[in-house]
Amino acid sequence: MNLKQFAGRVDHTLLDKDAPASAYDGLADEATRYGTNVCVPVSRLDRVADVNGEVAAVVGFPHGTTTPEVKAYEAREAVDAGATEVDVACNVSLLKSGEDDAFKSDIRAVVETGATTKAIIETGLLDDDEKRRAARICAEAGAEFVKTCTGYASGKATVEDIRLLKDEVGDEARVKASGGVRDAEEALRLLKAGASRIGASAGDQLVRGARSLLPKE
Amino acid sequence: MNLKQFAGRVDHTLLDKDAPASAYDGLADEATRYGTNVCVPVSRLDRVADVNGEVAAVVGFPHGTTTPEVKAYEAREAVDAGATEVDVACNVSLLKSGEDDAFKSDIRAVVETGATTKAIIETGLLDDDEKRRAARICAEAGAEFVKTCTGYASGKATVEDIRLLKDEVGDEARVKASGGVRDAEEALRLLKAGASRIGASAGDQLVRGARSLLPKE
Repeated sequence: MNLKQFAGRVDHTLLDKDAPASAYDGLADEATRYGTNVCVPVSRLDRVADVNGEVAAVVGFPHGTTTPEVKAYEAREAVDAGATEVDVACNVSLLKSGEDDAFKSDIRAVVETGATTKAIIETGLLDDDEKRRAARICAEAGAEFVKTCTGYASGKATVEDIRLLKDEVGDEARVKASGGVRDAEEALRLLKAGASRIGASAGDQLVRGARSLLPKE
Repeated sequence: MNLKQFAGRVDHTLLDKDAPASAYDGLADEATRYGTNVCVPVSRLDRVADVNGEVAAVVGFPHGTTTPEVKAYEAREAVDAGATEVDVACNVSLLKSGEDDAFKSDIRAVVETGATTKAIIETGLLDDDEKRRAARICAEAGAEFVKTCTGYASGKATVEDIRLLKDEVGDEARVKASGGVRDAEEALRLLKAGASRIGASAGDQLVRGARSLLPKE
């Protein structure tokens, strides 16, 4: 992997609810400079329209306890506003109650909008069996990615969880590692463990750190 | 104020994303027993349908950074599913950027659905001038309540903030105190300072604690 390929696997993320418009402009500038993707709320998609990489918007975020209809509506709004991908918070309450069909329908409603879907299972709130069950159901629902954490609950991306999730979904889905990824070395470990994408609010920092670790091209 | 009136001012709240269905059943039972209102996510409104008090659902919660259209859609879904009130997270990003017209339109979109609207300004992220500006705009947008905190950011309901918000909105809106309210004495202080409603995950505990402080009828 070279530096350019690495940057293409980074979703440079800004989701703080009090981040002003100017912070999104800064995110877009950094994404262009470093060659990363971005991940933002739907109401700020207009600020990142010029980014070359993937433009993801979060849906049902971060709680995931709204209805499938609301999530699908928000996903369509996101795509209409320029998003190429959506990162949707799963309904963990349904999973915890064994309502697996409803958990699946919730993600399928977003997949059916046609948006490239990353389903966030919130690993920090799940035991290993629940992580596998959530990942399997999301893959069956047609999600392109299973993603670890929103960053707004306990838990962070770990090498162990990436291995577990990749083992569960195999070639049915890719895995996105997000939550607490702070430096390039950690990002490379997560990619090596099976992740295809890294989400990080320090996306620019990850690419700068990778300069000394990877060939430029 | 008697105990029954006190209970009617309490929104017994359950919003943890990993709370199972049974926890919502328990919330509904407690609300019936203690005479409180409830506040839940839209996907769990079916579990609290038998509650006698007000039934509130959260909208755009807790980040508030989706679009006005999504919030209005979610508010309509909530009302259709039995909610009598909606607690909507304001878009703090817009306020922080001085986009006051957009901040107002965002809340107005929810008000225009006809739902009784509590606008959460997230006091923990605002200075006093911003708190006043947010409260004034929400009242102008037609929100019935200005509410302090989601409980999912820094900050909690304080007597000082309730006084400030009530001073700003006067008779134009009521004030809901939420965030970190743990006992009956604190709830009574907040009501005395100008709050008309208290939101608390320990709603049952507040009413039990008030038994020794207030006449029954």
